[in-house]
Amino acid sequence: MGQKRVALVAAGITKFGKRKATFRDLIAEAGKATFDSNKNISPKDVKAFIISTVYPERSAFQGHPAPLAAEWCGVRPTEFHERVENQCGSGTSAIRTAYAAIMSGLTDLVMVVGVEKVMVPSHKEIFLNAMAGSDREWESCFGVTPPPLFAMVAQAHMQKFGTTEEQLALVSVKNHNHSKTNPYAHHQKGATLEQVMTSRLIAAPLKLFDCSTNTDGAAGVIVALEERAKSLTDKPVYILGTAQINDGYPWVAYPKDWSTWPSLRFAAQKAYEMAGIGPKDVDVAEVHDCFTISEIIEYEELGFCKKGEGGRFVEDGQSDYGGEVVVNPSGGLIACGHPFGATGVRQAWEAYIQLRDEAGTRQVKGAEIFLGHNLSGLGEHHILIYGRS
Amino acid sequence: MGQKRVALVAAGITKFGKRKATFRDLIAEAGKATFDSNKNISPKDVKAFIISTVYPERSAFQGHPAPLAAEWCGVRPTEFHERVENQCGSGTSAIRTAYAAIMSGLTDLVMVVGVEKVMVPSHKEIFLNAMAGSDREWESCFGVTPPPLFAMVAQAHMQKFGTTEEQLALVSVKNHNHSKTNPYAHHQKGATLEQVMTSRLIAAPLKLFDCSTNTDGAAGVIVALEERAKSLTDKPVYILGTAQINDGYPWVAYPKDWSTWPSLRFAAQKAYEMAGIGPKDVDVAEVHDCFTISEIIEYEELGFCKKGEGGRFVEDGQSDYGGEVVVNPSGGLIACGHPFGATGVRQAWEAYIQLRDEAGTRQVKGAEIFLGHNLSGLGEHHILIYGRS
Repeated sequence: MGQKRVALVAAGITKFGKRKATFRDLIAEAGKATFDSNKNISPKDVKAFIISTVYPERSAFQGHPAPLAAEWCGVRPTEFHERVENQCGSGTSAIRTAYAAIMSGLTDLVMVVGVEKVMVPSHKEIFLNAMAGSDREWESCFGVTPPPLFAMVAQAHMQKFGTTEEQLALVSVKNHNHSKTNPYAHHQKGATLEQVMTSRLIAAPLKLFDCSTNTDGAAGVIVALEERAKSLTDKPVYILGTAQINDGYPWVAYPKDWSTWPSLRFAAQKAYEMAGIGPKDVDVAEVHDCFTISEIIEYEELGFCKKGEGGRFVEDGQSDYGGEVVVNPSGGLIACGHPFGATGVRQAWEAYIQLRDEAGTRQVKGAEIFLGHNLSGLGEHHILIYGRS
Repeated sequence: MGQKRVALVAAGITKFGKRKATFRDLIAEAGKATFDSNKNISPKDVKAFIISTVYPERSAFQGHPAPLAAEWCGVRPTEFHERVENQCGSGTSAIRTAYAAIMSGLTDLVMVVGVEKVMVPSHKEIFLNAMAGSDREWESCFGVTPPPLFAMVAQAHMQKFGTTEEQLALVSVKNHNHSKTNPYAHHQKGATLEQVMTSRLIAAPLKLFDCSTNTDGAAGVIVALEERAKSLTDKPVYILGTAQINDGYPWVAYPKDWSTWPSLRFAAQKAYEMAGIGPKDVDVAEVHDCFTISEIIEYEELGFCKKGEGGRFVEDGQSDYGGEVVVNPSGGLIACGHPFGATGVRQAWEAYIQLRDEAGTRQVKGAEIFLGHNLSGLGEHHILIYGRS
């Protein structure tokens, strides 16, 4: 039992952005890209399927997405299938569920597709969608949606640790520059410090470029039991550790000091322990930069730097190529965009290509360990750690 | 690994019906009922939580229900949590996921709550909800929603096997009479053959009493690894077998002969095999009687009777007390009502009380094996088999 292991054996992605494609088109496109990534697997071989999606009922006017998505990928599940949702952390949750389904013996191979169609004609729908993510009785009805929430987080961190607006902006500059090498990213033009600092104010101190982007997109991975994985590819990407926590809802109730996220620290510790590694062993990470401040706090709570030193960490280039750990080489949520249900799966796709040396010009050379982090609230975190062996 | 087992250790339910309670109220009520059912478990002991719910984004205007529901049950998950959705089969899917999470070693105890707030002021919302369950591009836009779909199923079965409208009606009579002893059911007045036969025509040959009811409600169970289960109760209710299939979407594409559901037969066989039993061993079953014709076809495909003889099976009283197998002692979807995300969990609650001799006047005496069946389409089935030991 302790010896059973699970690995990624395929991964594909769609172009992220303001797409003309429908919800269904995006699924089919990600499905094709996933199968194209490993010609040893055909849709007929897949008997378990999980879709990660947050808002199809509102944005695509379509419920019951699991069988629809399976069908559009050519898959007929006879072992396990469902839709998994955990708001912005849905993708990582779905891969964890695939891991559980395989480890439980119900199946030995699962396809996971994450998708979101966000750019719909009615902006009212988008606005309502954003509201539906927080507590409608205690938060969103008072206007407490993600941007003001994370603005308050930023203010707390600046006050307590002296983090500066420039340091926040440098996260955005880094991620926008990374995405220039990612043809699937929503934004590919890069960004300068001046551009970020002078962009429109959203919720002080967060400016437009401090925020992730509403984006359409989808991504897929196939996860398999080690024995089967080895028969399908020479370079499986192993899941070494995982953890998940939700410590407090609604967001506004937790925690008292928003500059510190003990629940993320707890989850990270647990995932490192399961993987048998420490934070210094992580070579490359995709973390949940829904806002620049999130990435800074994540450096700290994931143990990449000391508490309070996240601002300096990015300023010193420690989260960029040549630094301690390359964070968000894909461009992250800020530059790839954030199609809710797809983001965690997009992170797994990055793990797949980075740990197989297939990431082209943004390859982190010699990367052995990859950490993926998704959040769905200040106290709600989802972590997966991947390794080459 | 083969020796690990999982069991129900608690179960609770809310009154089903046209409730004034909100989505959130229903969750809290089911949570309390679940903890009340086993005083050895407190919310603090629960570190994994799954919510099964289909439409909160539309009917309760609330997304991201997993952490909200956990919070309202007093639970702070640190091991596993998510929302699972598979339309009408969400409840059984969620319990299967809990089983997988436990068997995988990620956790050893999971609380599962199923809930739906359906009776909202805007009937347009309810109508839109129903549409969102089928394929909006290929089905519901043409008016092909569940009632006409199952009407066509009934017509096919009547034509091929000579099933009569009276036989359909007898399913409803049985289930309505069963629910007289279930204080949590939506309908508790019973029904006569005449009442069913003269009720308003919905989609020929289905009449109002042939259909399950739009209902608000919630139910909860706690599932645990055998060792832990034994420390929490003297009478755990074991999960012996499970299967799931989705063979074809949209519904209208599958299968050619709607009177026969080979996918259900396949799933049943698989679940029986895993449980090491056959259909004749089942003492009591809660099956998905979304329409009377469904229950008749389920008798056949689950192996309770021969193909084509489902009509006679109910007419001969074989699915009632004193017959081969007691089907839907709770009243089923027809008389309990069908709050989508709650139904599969409500079936597990019935398993829990039946296999612990706690079902009062509707107790199936000496019941050893219980089968729960949920569907979310003609080709989409979810099965759990429970046993006393």
